[in-house]
Amino acid sequence: MNTKKGPQKTLIKELGKQALMNRLSARFTSRNQATLQGPGDDASVACYNQALTVSAQKLSLEGIDFDLSYFPLKFVGYKTAVHAMGQVMAMNAVPLQLLVCAGVSQRFYIEDLDELFLGIEAAAQMYGADIAFLDIQSSYTGLTLSITATGDCDAGLLTRRSGARNTDLICLSGNVGAAYMGLQLLEREKRVFTGEANKDELPSLEGFEYILERYLKPELPKALLDNLKADDAVPTAMCLLTNGLSDGVLRIAQASGTGANIFLDKIPIARQCYDFAETEENLSPVVAALNGGDDYQMLFTLPLSMYDTLVKEYTLDIIGHICEASRGCRLITPDGRSLPLESPGLTIH
Amino acid sequence: MNTKKGPQKTLIKELGKQALMNRLSARFTSRNQATLQGPGDDASVACYNQALTVSAQKLSLEGIDFDLSYFPLKFVGYKTAVHAMGQVMAMNAVPLQLLVCAGVSQRFYIEDLDELFLGIEAAAQMYGADIAFLDIQSSYTGLTLSITATGDCDAGLLTRRSGARNTDLICLSGNVGAAYMGLQLLEREKRVFTGEANKDELPSLEGFEYILERYLKPELPKALLDNLKADDAVPTAMCLLTNGLSDGVLRIAQASGTGANIFLDKIPIARQCYDFAETEENLSPVVAALNGGDDYQMLFTLPLSMYDTLVKEYTLDIIGHICEASRGCRLITPDGRSLPLESPGLTIH
Repeated sequence: MNTKKGPQKTLIKELGKQALMNRLSARFTSRNQATLQGPGDDASVACYNQALTVSAQKLSLEGIDFDLSYFPLKFVGYKTAVHAMGQVMAMNAVPLQLLVCAGVSQRFYIEDLDELFLGIEAAAQMYGADIAFLDIQSSYTGLTLSITATGDCDAGLLTRRSGARNTDLICLSGNVGAAYMGLQLLEREKRVFTGEANKDELPSLEGFEYILERYLKPELPKALLDNLKADDAVPTAMCLLTNGLSDGVLRIAQASGTGANIFLDKIPIARQCYDFAETEENLSPVVAALNGGDDYQMLFTLPLSMYDTLVKEYTLDIIGHICEASRGCRLITPDGRSLPLESPGLTIH
Repeated sequence: MNTKKGPQKTLIKELGKQALMNRLSARFTSRNQATLQGPGDDASVACYNQALTVSAQKLSLEGIDFDLSYFPLKFVGYKTAVHAMGQVMAMNAVPLQLLVCAGVSQRFYIEDLDELFLGIEAAAQMYGADIAFLDIQSSYTGLTLSITATGDCDAGLLTRRSGARNTDLICLSGNVGAAYMGLQLLEREKRVFTGEANKDELPSLEGFEYILERYLKPELPKALLDNLKADDAVPTAMCLLTNGLSDGVLRIAQASGTGANIFLDKIPIARQCYDFAETEENLSPVVAALNGGDDYQMLFTLPLSMYDTLVKEYTLDIIGHICEASRGCRLITPDGRSLPLESPGLTIH
């Protein structure tokens, strides 16, 4: 058995997720010319017979990515498919096929799988993809869902994380932090249900439909990306926000070899985030926006020269600008203070 | 919670795996012209900008696909990658990229992941693919590994399961049943280790290296496929054997709308399968060959007119021929009896 702790073994948390991924990737050899983008972006890019294929995979695990006590199976399927397609869209590509593998234990019934796949098919329909590969297998302990999205991309449209340049505008497709607040609300409802919290002391779900929907049933900013394409406005860099705004800004800046300034008062935060934060101690809408995760918004950069056009013709938020690497990645507050952006990282349980 | 048994709910085993997959697939809509092959073959096929992309995904779950008490992590990575690439090769395509997601719990260490990825990289190197996408996340209960392989294919080479025609020869890339025997040996060793069996009454692993290797470290018949391509010999149908020879023959016949006859005395079975079967009651090399699984051989069909060339110039086994659908799929024994082929199906635990 290989998993026993020996004197030479290192806990994953000692290294952290990103360092682990870098350690592993460093040993991979790139051995064929077809690979235009390897690990380290939202998706892989291959050139097969002079055409680009963009691919990304999302693994969703019960207890980690979703809690079935409040996460309906239909939305598990939907959200996993949206995640995979969002990563493909973050390369400015069009997801067209989904490959689906599910592992299910005996506690699931045929009708449960119907629900799961109803959600996957709903996501496929919403973004124009086909479910083109399917496998179902046993699992001992719960539900495992793995979805790969593949799509095509015209070579001139391909957008990586690494293309941001000094003075580029940093744009966001919509508000952030709402999904995180929705998750907190659902976790609180679960504590009420299990008796850990007192229902009478807490407000109802009413009035918080938007943050719940943002967590359970996120949508991708496809219309915005389509409009930009139609106007030949190709982002210099782009990434899908899954681990919070700070993480996205840091990833683009790091990949591009730049710094970034973002302005706190320019970050769009939904009204319900403030409303919900008032019902709980220790909930900050700003922290949710910066580090919350599950936003499924696009963070992207465009040349400064496009400022007027962007403001006039698109529904998006310009939250800052790219700067020189030496200036780091910083959050500027309305009173002029400047704080370093930090990514919360991810824990291996 | 959606997983409670209600009056209207159906156990998965009541329907069976294939019927479940058919039920789910029947509700998928094919909505874009890029999809040339959807669910029901070894891999999906997309046409992106006039070029083909062939993709397949394999989900490996601890306790189902591998038992870490005897399955080294390196081989878990290797075998999962081989499975995904084998499905792409079964379309007569060339796997060039691997997308990898792993879910790991706290009982795994950095060095364990090093081993896992050493195996994935070894498989990638062996078949010329790049690891082009990587994500690591938490899991509560064990190791989950999902690998997608994508590759390219010239349109004239694409081989589906559905192209077999009456009188076509049924060919096999090598012997079958060995991996199943290797698994039985490892399971027996585990029973010895846990005290459920008496070591002294059983023979050692010595002399059974081949069947162990076939289970732990299978190889794909890439050289044979390359040789066929070099000679413009394009199989009319092909599939990767993962669930036994019978299952493969039935899948090709069903997809092609034909029947099939295979001859028992033509099925290649390795010497060690017979040797190992002699050490255990209730182990039949023929049953292992027909229904064992994990063979990773290619089963394919070619026109009858190629018989002489195939026999003279290739290392493969011709085990039977395609016939009319009305004659069914049958196993012909040396004494002239004819038995219907049956697939064991798969159980949802």
